Amino acid sequence: MPRKKPGTPPGSLVYTGDRRTDRVRIDLVDYDKQTCDERALDRVEDAYPCRDKPCMSWVNIVGLHEPAVLESLGNQFGYHPLVLEDILNTHQRPKFEEHDDYLFVVARLLHYDDASGEIETEQISFIASSNLLVSFQEIPGDVFHAVRQRIRDGRPRIRTSGSDYLLYALLDTIVDSYFLILEKLGERIELLEDSLMDHPDRESLAEIYRLKRELITVRKAVWPIRELAVGLERSESKLIRKTTHIFLRDVYDHAVQAIDAAENYRETVSSLLDMYLSSISNRTNDVMKVLTMIATIFIPLSFLAGLYGMNFEHMPELHYAWAYPMLLGVMASVAIGFVIYFKRKNWL
Amino acid sequence: MPRKKPGTPPGSLVYTGDRRTDRVRIDLVDYDKQTCDERALDRVEDAYPCRDKPCMSWVNIVGLHEPAVLESLGNQFGYHPLVLEDILNTHQRPKFEEHDDYLFVVARLLHYDDASGEIETEQISFIASSNLLVSFQEIPGDVFHAVRQRIRDGRPRIRTSGSDYLLYALLDTIVDSYFLILEKLGERIELLEDSLMDHPDRESLAEIYRLKRELITVRKAVWPIRELAVGLERSESKLIRKTTHIFLRDVYDHAVQAIDAAENYRETVSSLLDMYLSSISNRTNDVMKVLTMIATIFIPLSFLAGLYGMNFEHMPELHYAWAYPMLLGVMASVAIGFVIYFKRKNWL
Amino acid sequence: MPRKKPGTPPGSLVYTGDRRTDRVRIDLVDYDKQTCDERALDRVEDAYPCRDKPCMSWVNIVGLHEPAVLESLGNQFGYHPLVLEDILNTHQRPKFEEHDDYLFVVARLLHYDDASGEIETEQISFIASSNLLVSFQEIPGDVFHAVRQRIRDGRPRIRTSGSDYLLYALLDTIVDSYFLILEKLGERIELLEDSLMDHPDRESLAEIYRLKRELITVRKAVWPIRELAVGLERSESKLIRKTTHIFLRDVYDHAVQAIDAAENYRETVSSLLDMYLSSISNRTNDVMKVLTMIATIFIPLSFLAGLYGMNFEHMPELHYAWAYPMLLGVMASVAIGFVIYFKRKNWL
Amino acid sequence: MPRKKPGTPPGSLVYTGDRRTDRVRIDLVDYDKQTCDERALDRVEDAYPCRDKPCMSWVNIVGLHEPAVLESLGNQFGYHPLVLEDILNTHQRPKFEEHDDYLFVVARLLHYDDASGEIETEQISFIASSNLLVSFQEIPGDVFHAVRQRIRDGRPRIRTSGSDYLLYALLDTIVDSYFLILEKLGERIELLEDSLMDHPDRESLAEIYRLKRELITVRKAVWPIRELAVGLERSESKLIRKTTHIFLRDVYDHAVQAIDAAENYRETVSSLLDMYLSSISNRTNDVMKVLTMIATIFIPLSFLAGLYGMNFEHMPELHYAWAYPMLLGVMASVAIGFVIYFKRKNWL
Amino acid sequence: MPRKKPGTPPGSLVYTGDRRTDRVRIDLVDYDKQTCDERALDRVEDAYPCRDKPCMSWVNIVGLHEPAVLESLGNQFGYHPLVLEDILNTHQRPKFEEHDDYLFVVARLLHYDDASGEIETEQISFIASSNLLVSFQEIPGDVFHAVRQRIRDGRPRIRTSGSDYLLYALLDTIVDSYFLILEKLGERIELLEDSLMDHPDRESLAEIYRLKRELITVRKAVWPIRELAVGLERSESKLIRKTTHIFLRDVYDHAVQAIDAAENYRETVSSLLDMYLSSISNRTNDVMKVLTMIATIFIPLSFLAGLYGMNFEHMPELHYAWAYPMLLGVMASVAIGFVIYFKRKNWL
Repeated sequence: MPRKKPGTPPGSLVYTGDRRTDRVRIDLVDYDKQTCDERALDRVEDAYPCRDKPCMSWVNIVGLHEPAVLESLGNQFGYHPLVLEDILNTHQRPKFEEHDDYLFVVARLLHYDDASGEIETEQISFIASSNLLVSFQEIPGDVFHAVRQRIRDGRPRIRTSGSDYLLYALLDTIVDSYFLILEKLGERIELLEDSLMDHPDRESLAEIYRLKRELITVRKAVWPIRELAVGLERSESKLIRKTTHIFLRDVYDHAVQAIDAAENYRETVSSLLDMYLSSISNRTNDVMKVLTMIATIFIPLSFLAGLYGMNFEHMPELHYAWAYPMLLGVMASVAIGFVIYFKRKNWL
Repeated sequence: MPRKKPGTPPGSLVYTGDRRTDRVRIDLVDYDKQTCDERALDRVEDAYPCRDKPCMSWVNIVGLHEPAVLESLGNQFGYHPLVLEDILNTHQRPKFEEHDDYLFVVARLLHYDDASGEIETEQISFIASSNLLVSFQEIPGDVFHAVRQRIRDGRPRIRTSGSDYLLYALLDTIVDSYFLILEKLGERIELLEDSLMDHPDRESLAEIYRLKRELITVRKAVWPIRELAVGLERSESKLIRKTTHIFLRDVYDHAVQAIDAAENYRETVSSLLDMYLSSISNRTNDVMKVLTMIATIFIPLSFLAGLYGMNFEHMPELHYAWAYPMLLGVMASVAIGFVIYFKRKNWL
Repeated sequence: MPRKKPGTPPGSLVYTGDRRTDRVRIDLVDYDKQTCDERALDRVEDAYPCRDKPCMSWVNIVGLHEPAVLESLGNQFGYHPLVLEDILNTHQRPKFEEHDDYLFVVARLLHYDDASGEIETEQISFIASSNLLVSFQEIPGDVFHAVRQRIRDGRPRIRTSGSDYLLYALLDTIVDSYFLILEKLGERIELLEDSLMDHPDRESLAEIYRLKRELITVRKAVWPIRELAVGLERSESKLIRKTTHIFLRDVYDHAVQAIDAAENYRETVSSLLDMYLSSISNRTNDVMKVLTMIATIFIPLSFLAGLYGMNFEHMPELHYAWAYPMLLGVMASVAIGFVIYFKRKNWL
Repeated sequence: MPRKKPGTPPGSLVYTGDRRTDRVRIDLVDYDKQTCDERALDRVEDAYPCRDKPCMSWVNIVGLHEPAVLESLGNQFGYHPLVLEDILNTHQRPKFEEHDDYLFVVARLLHYDDASGEIETEQISFIASSNLLVSFQEIPGDVFHAVRQRIRDGRPRIRTSGSDYLLYALLDTIVDSYFLILEKLGERIELLEDSLMDHPDRESLAEIYRLKRELITVRKAVWPIRELAVGLERSESKLIRKTTHIFLRDVYDHAVQAIDAAENYRETVSSLLDMYLSSISNRTNDVMKVLTMIATIFIPLSFLAGLYGMNFEHMPELHYAWAYPMLLGVMASVAIGFVIYFKRKNWL
Repeated sequence: MPRKKPGTPPGSLVYTGDRRTDRVRIDLVDYDKQTCDERALDRVEDAYPCRDKPCMSWVNIVGLHEPAVLESLGNQFGYHPLVLEDILNTHQRPKFEEHDDYLFVVARLLHYDDASGEIETEQISFIASSNLLVSFQEIPGDVFHAVRQRIRDGRPRIRTSGSDYLLYALLDTIVDSYFLILEKLGERIELLEDSLMDHPDRESLAEIYRLKRELITVRKAVWPIRELAVGLERSESKLIRKTTHIFLRDVYDHAVQAIDAAENYRETVSSLLDMYLSSISNRTNDVMKVLTMIATIFIPLSFLAGLYGMNFEHMPELHYAWAYPMLLGVMASVAIGFVIYFKRKNWL
């Protein structure tokens, strides 16, 4: 959780993440009902005219390690310094803020590393004004590819709607991606269940613990989305058209679904830990039973054998011919007696 | 949790379930105070006239694997694309949405597989407009048979009421069916209790875990129903007549009852796990006691026997006539001493 | 939880309990400031005139296995079919419903079976109209005896008040009876505490589990009473006089007190389970220590004895006169060494 | 929890506690800005004139075992019978009730018995009318001494304020006294922590359990005080002057602080129980290790010794001169091998 | 939790902390858009003129052990006695109070002692009137250094804003400092995780427990800050300018973030405890297995050896030449049999 130093003035633009792309990439999509124009911008200044164009513009900025880019953008478009600070301080809790002439949304995207099974989170921020949406990503990635494709394909709804609908479409993409992560965690939980039943070992314990941590990570990203969606849906900002509300309600529904799934997984993982503990106790009990049976049968027999291994001069039993076979008989009876006892106790 | 790909546009009609009936079945019931006419429709288009008929119509669609059917219906009756998407995306959380001229309700039906003891859930959706109710099921089943029978039998209340009452009757049927499932789980819990007291084993642990999971499944279906019922009851939609509110309150009461039962079962199952762990600990303790008693008595005796089994030349005791009987006496005393000690410690 | 079949129409009058008295008993008390007239009615029809009499009437019906009685009453007095269904469906959650010209209240009475220590619940329902209160019990019992006596004795408040005050008096009696049950559970918990400290055994575990279950039963009856009391207190029904509100507040206070007590007992029982587990662990540890001490001391000694019990021809030690006493000395030193070690480890 | 019998009429004045002082003591303090007059009253009737005196009067009644005193007072001053019942029924939950011309407050005072470490609770009730406050205690005690002293000393705020401020002062004294109790519990928890780390034993377990119970007792007294304080602060009764609200807010703050402390202690005690269990497990593990090491080293050696103690005629090894020293060598190697193995396993 | 004696009048100025600086230090900063004047005051009286100066004044008082300083200040500036009491009673819960012409804020600063790893808390209070902010610290420290530097540096926002913005800046500094503490705890948790996986020992248990306690301390400081920030943000006091609200919202966001982090840590630490217990159980199981294998293999073999070490005259086996090698063979088979059995049971 690296953060700015306590006491630095608000609006200090310092990137607190540790992801550095080669250079900041700025993509611009201008579109309206008829046209769609995609360009990569060299300098942030090239995005300035967007505000005054009649068409809808989507500026996507990838890479936050150059605060100057944000500062220049903020000055030009009139974003509040705290908003810019929040974009760069990439440990924000997802949230929605309504400013005078723009909406500010912070969300978290989850990346699942197939190799290590770890989940990374990336902060994605949006500023939506009337005909301009600026989105900020920490690292390059194709998460918004499908939305871009829908714009290119000329899907009527997205092409004729404003920044509120584009904001919805991007948020929806983020929320939908949570389900992919949850599905992977679900598969791992199922694998773990099977292995726990068959042979609980140290590795299962480590996996339970890893799953617990990853579910905490997921929850941190997903829980606040619900609140965020409620905020957006209830907002009376004139930037959100009436027809968009039902779509925002949809984001809310999906967020709740994701939360439900995550909570169920957490509960399942918790009961897996209980099951693990019970399995271990069970196994200790089994091990103990084997030891106890062997020891209980042979220790008295060994004692008997030891007794007649003593070298006293006067041990009359030693001289009887029938003494040895008789002792063997006694030993067999003792052993059989214990076996019957163990059978009764259900240990065998 | 298979779902649509992130980034697909809202309203994309893709069935996300894996249940395929041979073909989509469409049943129509037209009824009013006097008449009742049941028909199976060949094509969804045959349902179009329903809207303009003066009587009440109930269209029941079984099988969701042909999105075209829904699309056509949606276009004809003016359902919102997101509503259609929710019907096909069969991992919805139960919910109630009030649209301009129809009500949209999603609920989950629980199926108990007697063989495996597993609980499957099926999504059932309803769209109620003024004189038309369309219901969507994933798989054929006779869950609504009793309601159909009431219509056929000419029960006055259902025959003279509108789609709001029919919606209530169907929801009530779904909620009532939860109790059948809960009853079966209750029986299994009772069986488990008895077996845990008598002989806790690995199978009990697995059963506890299965019950935990199934109660999570039940909860996922039942909890949101309460919210849904509150929403319906408080709705000020003109589609819900005043006389229907008391019935919707009844659905709410039943949902709360089902939730209570499920929560009590969950708590009971949790304490069964604690009891299982305690039983195992208890048994390990018992096993240990047997081992300890046998070992504690015989190990010192064996040592004594070993002592006089040594081959030193100069061991005067070996030559005394009374040495052997005396040693036996000492051994008996040691053994008796330990037995008394164990009695005092309450181990015997 | 036997219940009506899913899909049966609302208002279907089927008694879902399993308590059958010989016949339904109907008691009528007519009273006003001056007079009090008690009668047992033969037929439910004899109760019909109550409604139009100027005095206050209390009809108490014991036994719900004859739905016809309720049906006839319902038709006569205009009770909603769902209300009648709820009375017969004796697995209701306690609740309060305000109807146009009557109040409907469901509560649960707890019966403590002194022999088995189990708690049974009985559903008791009330319908209060302006000058008539009808109460429904499943089984005969003297729970309302004291209230009847107060009417007979001519206590001014009850004799001059209406059905709202009578409803309060009966509810108050039910809530007060919870404390008797809680007191009995409290005594059992105290007994259990003492026995756990002295000798935790399998029976304690079973008792902990039984207490947990009984507290769940109590909670199921008591929790909803609070909500019910809030509903009654806040109700703006003209059937509830202003002076009665303070008494209803009293019912609420008592319900909260009962809930508090039940919750504290639950917490206490939970910590008893923890204590039980800890005690068992402790005892296993004690058992282990005894075993370990005995084995640790005597196993090495036995080895030494075994060593000199070997039959090698060339074992010079065997021939020295001082070898045997010296070995005994070594053995004693080893034993004493271990005893000191155990003392230091605080095992002795 | 002894209580009145179910069904007794409301307002039945029966003292349900078990504390009997010799006789009921009644203290009266009349005070205004200039004067302060303290007297012990012989009969409750001597308190009647208070109401009509222009000065502020505080009547403190100690001992509740004579219901007649309360009845007479209630009749004279017009207190509601339920209020009087609540005062005598000393198992009330702390609460605040606003009546027409008086405020009724019930609180609980905690007494810490230094000898047994147990916490007793005493119910203290207040009835505040415009210029009269009557307080009721179960047993004599000097809890209100400091407030009395402040009146005697002529502190201007208390001397010039009304019954609302006096009520605040007394409540504040009660709430402040909670901290003394909490401090004592805190000291015991610290002692327990230290002893748990050093030598967890059966006594620690008993102490954990006692602390749990005492914290439940504290919570029962403290939690409702918060609600009570909120009620008082928000009350719009004309008996509470505007300048008193900030003081009532202070009571609220202190109650929240006490609740926080109690909750933190509860959490700490819970984690102490976990620590206790872990310590015991740890110790069992240590004990097991000792046993296992000794047994693992010496059992195989004993077997070898036993092998050459056999009396077969044809055992060639017995006759070689180097056999004995060689066997000793083998034995030493086995022992050293195991020691190295245990070192590697980190058991030594 | 040392506190004032119960019953002392409200507004009694007694410092309840135990930190004494040499003398109370009073620092004054007067600033406006153009000028900035810093001075250390000798006497508190020197701060009196601040109120009437046109510029903004910040009086920072370090050291609370001289109540006279506060009393004089309170009288001069008209602070309520309860406010002064709260400042001195340094066990306050962080809170916000709106008084007529000033705002009163209590917060807690956390100090992390690098040596012992313990967290100390210090109460910091603020009283903000229109152009004067007085802050109270218990001990000297440079926590506000950065804010002072911003004033010196002439940062326009802080120099042109009033006491509301200064209050924000100081609160923000305190909240930001929580993250430093949380980061340190986070590092310790990570270290602990690694060591638990490798070698759980008694020290790990102690560290888990210490972390639990420190997280309770953090929570006590951080949780109420959220409430405080909500109170400030929603306050309609004219002392808080409209432009400051967005900054106060920022404090709220940071407080929520800190709470989230603390809660996640708590959950992580809890699961570390579970992991610890599981690891110990696992290890006990491993130890048991070693013991059981060794004992199970050698105890029967020792018995066989003992059998042929008996001294009976008539033991025919002893005289056969092949008896010894055959017995060795039998012994080897038994041993191998057990090894195979253990392999199958997965113990090896």
